[in-house]
Amino acid sequence: MSPREIEVSEPREVGITELVLRDAHQSLMATRMAMEDMVGACADIDAAGYWSVECWGGATYDSCIRFLNEDPWERLRTFRKLMPNSRLQMLLRGQNLLGYRHYNDEVVDRFVDKSAENGMDVFRVFDAMNDPRNMAHAMAAVKKAGKHAQGTICYTISPVHTVEGYVKLAGQLLDMGADSIALKDMAALLKPQPAYDIIKAIKDTYGQKTQINLHCHSTTGVTEVSLMKAIEAGVDVVDTAISSMSLGPGHNPTESVAEMLEGTGYTTNLDYDRLHKIRDHFKAIRPKYKKFESKTLVDTSIFKSQIPGGMLSNMESQLRAQGAEDKMDEVMAEVPRVRKAAGFPPLVTPSSQIVGTQAVFNVMMGEYKRMTGEFADIMLGYYGASPADRDPKVVKLAEEQSGKKPITQRPADLLPPEWEKQSKEAATLKGFNGTDEDVLTYALFPQVAPVFFEHRAEGPHSVALTDAQLKAEAEGDEKSLAVAGPVTYNVNVGGTVREVTVQQA
Amino acid sequence: MSPREIEVSEPREVGITELVLRDAHQSLMATRMAMEDMVGACADIDAAGYWSVECWGGATYDSCIRFLNEDPWERLRTFRKLMPNSRLQMLLRGQNLLGYRHYNDEVVDRFVDKSAENGMDVFRVFDAMNDPRNMAHAMAAVKKAGKHAQGTICYTISPVHTVEGYVKLAGQLLDMGADSIALKDMAALLKPQPAYDIIKAIKDTYGQKTQINLHCHSTTGVTEVSLMKAIEAGVDVVDTAISSMSLGPGHNPTESVAEMLEGTGYTTNLDYDRLHKIRDHFKAIRPKYKKFESKTLVDTSIFKSQIPGGMLSNMESQLRAQGAEDKMDEVMAEVPRVRKAAGFPPLVTPSSQIVGTQAVFNVMMGEYKRMTGEFADIMLGYYGASPADRDPKVVKLAEEQSGKKPITQRPADLLPPEWEKQSKEAATLKGFNGTDEDVLTYALFPQVAPVFFEHRAEGPHSVALTDAQLKAEAEGDEKSLAVAGPVTYNVNVGGTVREVTVQQA
Repeated sequence: MSPREIEVSEPREVGITELVLRDAHQSLMATRMAMEDMVGACADIDAAGYWSVECWGGATYDSCIRFLNEDPWERLRTFRKLMPNSRLQMLLRGQNLLGYRHYNDEVVDRFVDKSAENGMDVFRVFDAMNDPRNMAHAMAAVKKAGKHAQGTICYTISPVHTVEGYVKLAGQLLDMGADSIALKDMAALLKPQPAYDIIKAIKDTYGQKTQINLHCHSTTGVTEVSLMKAIEAGVDVVDTAISSMSLGPGHNPTESVAEMLEGTGYTTNLDYDRLHKIRDHFKAIRPKYKKFESKTLVDTSIFKSQIPGGMLSNMESQLRAQGAEDKMDEVMAEVPRVRKAAGFPPLVTPSSQIVGTQAVFNVMMGEYKRMTGEFADIMLGYYGASPADRDPKVVKLAEEQSGKKPITQRPADLLPPEWEKQSKEAATLKGFNGTDEDVLTYALFPQVAPVFFEHRAEGPHSVALTDAQLKAEAEGDEKSLAVAGPVTYNVNVGGTVREVTVQQA
Repeated sequence: MSPREIEVSEPREVGITELVLRDAHQSLMATRMAMEDMVGACADIDAAGYWSVECWGGATYDSCIRFLNEDPWERLRTFRKLMPNSRLQMLLRGQNLLGYRHYNDEVVDRFVDKSAENGMDVFRVFDAMNDPRNMAHAMAAVKKAGKHAQGTICYTISPVHTVEGYVKLAGQLLDMGADSIALKDMAALLKPQPAYDIIKAIKDTYGQKTQINLHCHSTTGVTEVSLMKAIEAGVDVVDTAISSMSLGPGHNPTESVAEMLEGTGYTTNLDYDRLHKIRDHFKAIRPKYKKFESKTLVDTSIFKSQIPGGMLSNMESQLRAQGAEDKMDEVMAEVPRVRKAAGFPPLVTPSSQIVGTQAVFNVMMGEYKRMTGEFADIMLGYYGASPADRDPKVVKLAEEQSGKKPITQRPADLLPPEWEKQSKEAATLKGFNGTDEDVLTYALFPQVAPVFFEHRAEGPHSVALTDAQLKAEAEGDEKSLAVAGPVTYNVNVGGTVREVTVQQA
């Protein structure tokens, strides 16, 4: 049968956010994609009809200066130039910006201003603890810059997380002026029924015109159906990645999500010819980064263990380092108890690593005999409020062990001004270019920035295989014995062993 | 939120057919999986709670004797022994059985009887042309043997394929005594809306108790959503493959389909612990067969081209052989015209190759200037009725070029008795074991059977990597320069080039 013949009067347009330039390569290849491998697709991405193009933020800033010797601000400006017709979108970790601690409000303001000035349109602002106070200042700065402030809910599962709780959080974000609400399912935990229930409840409570964006990973293999159910519930925009950069720990394929709506009351209105060009571009690129890729395509284990893959491997290596691999089952059983004591935070970086490490400590040394500084900080409120009350006995132990007092105010309220100091320090660095953008790079990554500034002039370093290496590998796969270049061997020639360097004949 | 808290009164149980032992490895690794790599999972498969376990038929019979030196009947008996509590299921190509031509009814009867006797429970009977007359005799034989006869509809898209047409075909199959109806989507063309419409229409027309099984591949990345919509429409059983043997040209992951139903009005009641054991078993096995795997994970091109991947690569290699790669666009445009002339057959083996080759001939030599024997046979009715009328001008050309007359009766009605002749011929072969099963092997594969019989006593040949090779490869991947064994090089030692054999130090 030809579904094309089914007449649907005015299907509702569902927007698509294309993730290939940011989260797709962050999730599939450790954020390593070089700008040179992206520019060739930008014209087609710009014309494909996406609601927005996520292309900056998250771990890309760090990766640019740490691994790729690339100026992240230059990357943003290039995207702006190459995609003049698109809404550019970034992921911003609220008061953490793109770094790993809370920053003073002035740093937040300056970061948001500079991002807007360099071309950013949509700021997806989230907080790992789902504490709206950690998102408030960044969102206000986005509004002040005249840009789109997207307030974000991190989706997780626990006895205290309910549809009503998510609806309430959405309301808090809307009260803060959010132009839209994002539901962010970084661990692929969101099943079809709760996806439907949450989207519908937010729409029913705050009005059908409340814009909701849905971000799901594909790790567990259930979330494409969740996207469909969310669309049926009225979601406005869903995030996808072009098929050649999809699935596994990444996201659902753009073309498949567009195609699956045919004949339903929904459409994406994307341009398939453009999508196929984008697909073919990245299909050729992806193998160059295969050494960064995970081999697991689908894994539903998290539904039982509640432990994301990255957290699991981290705990395993901690145990191995202490010769205690046999304790893994005990640690797995300890994780839910530690999470409960901490008030059921979502398990996402950094809370996943903090809870996991504390679970390892508890098993190895006895329950809360020794707390990590980070876990004590979570227990004392230095990461923000927890979704549920924290265990008062463990809070008390955290106080004793850390010598710090519990706090209830917004953590960033405790931070002294820092911009002036950072500006002065940055100005002393070799290669500093005098811009506020460079000060921000230094403020966010004080260890990495000096090295980056010093070497910036050398230009970007790609960590991908070259075309020649890729070709050699492909041939090697076929021959299974091929050697990529000269290798040194011990060779027995006429009874004498010598070290020689050889090249295949 | 915890979907576990949503109370649903008596969710409807959806059955699952597990494909890992047949179609999963047929689709992912060219049917090459050896029995030794399957036996270890059988106890868990038997206890996981599947509606049925597909484990035989399709291309496995051919692969057993052609590549694995394994007796397919022995494989069936072993599965029967290892999975005493399961419905074993096979795919049977109607009057073609497991071979590549129509067989005389007596051969069909004997094949079905022997399959039932050796342990088969559910026979999924299909015909590539969707001609019920090509399925009728096999289904009657299954009924006579007291087994489950599943009548099958191959899903395709064309201007003449409609929901009503599929409903009518389902009725014909039910009239033939089908215990259930399978909707078979071998090209992953079935989108959510038509999945819903067809399942619902069949149920509405023939009663809610009409059992419907749905088989979808995952190639296009849309069909997991189609499974969900089919479940909502009332489908009884859906086909899936354990996650470690899923996706790409294969199928949707079993665990994901089970998990996605949580909180809805449906459940699979599968045992997750067993599923995880089955997953882990095949996770270790899959890399051993990686050389047979396709690299494409998702591809929606077929929605535009209507041309399945296998057919595309076949046409490409035909053009390449004639130095005419530049004609590919013309051939792609010719395919829909040829398919229309042939009355819109589903494009599935063998019709896909026959239509594709004729399209190449038309472009290279002029329209229907030269027809292949197979294409003439399709045009003249020797493969059965077509979904729509064939182009009378092309039928006339087929008559002229082939010297054959068009037929309208069931093709197998023209076949003379053949069993006695085959029995006599088989008896002369070295290694023939005197059973009807061996005669059937000879009847189906007269070229391959003699070689297989002669070498059967040597036992199965695995075509997988050994554990040692796999380990060496993994180490090689890490070092990227590692060599698996001694290699001979030209080495320049002190100015003299000698050929030496080296082993890495």
